[in-house]
Amino acid sequence: MVNQQFAFAVHTLTALSVNKQGAMTSDQIAKSVNTNPVVIRRLLAKLSKNALVETQLGKNGGVKLKKKPQDITLKDIYMAINDKKLISENENAANKKCPISCKMKTLMKDIIDNSEKATLKYLSTIKLSELSEQI
Amino acid sequence: MVNQQFAFAVHTLTALSVNKQGAMTSDQIAKSVNTNPVVIRRLLAKLSKNALVETQLGKNGGVKLKKKPQDITLKDIYMAINDKKLISENENAANKKCPISCKMKTLMKDIIDNSEKATLKYLSTIKLSELSEQI
Repeated sequence: MVNQQFAFAVHTLTALSVNKQGAMTSDQIAKSVNTNPVVIRRLLAKLSKNALVETQLGKNGGVKLKKKPQDITLKDIYMAINDKKLISENENAANKKCPISCKMKTLMKDIIDNSEKATLKYLSTIKLSELSEQI
Repeated sequence: MVNQQFAFAVHTLTALSVNKQGAMTSDQIAKSVNTNPVVIRRLLAKLSKNALVETQLGKNGGVKLKKKPQDITLKDIYMAINDKKLISENENAANKKCPISCKMKTLMKDIIDNSEKATLKYLSTIKLSELSEQI
């Protein structure tokens, strides 16, 4: 499951990529994304942890990209943000008396993993620079 | 976003595919999936609407597959169940004063649609019969 976080993260990093002059504050980013600055600050913490942004201290402080936009793919952003798979498994325990139920977890795991791989393969082909060039 | 519904649907149809002898009741399916029969009945309504299962009336009544397992792909099941995309867009309105914000909806729409296509392409390669053969 991918909630709005990925869309927020792509927006944030595109904004930082377009705004070459300097760092941006979470308030400035939040205005562009049209969400609460608290949401953006939480997001920036994840992006920072994954070495996609860095904090610039001082008078004109804020965050800026830590890598060149051409060296960041949408897969990198997705991996930094998401901790859940796109497709959920059956979270209930298997019914041990049922051979179908016992086998389904393994079968679904493969389906979920391969679906994820297909999406990530696509996301790895798109660079952040390709988005910011279109603004 | 794909919640457990897809996993439940794949499980249900695999069970119907394995159980060649006759129809299954929603109670029987619910025991295998290990969820509430009400959840299964709601799911069966969607699968029926999409011509994947049909109801058999009478003493040994219940639901059965409407197509051969080799003629049903995981994409068919996914399309019958899901009304949301795997990746969510930013649901907030664009900030009209910000050129990045104005462009992001279009850019993200393409990313979301292409991610969806990548997953569906993979799901279209797996037939229900391939799952039931592994039980």
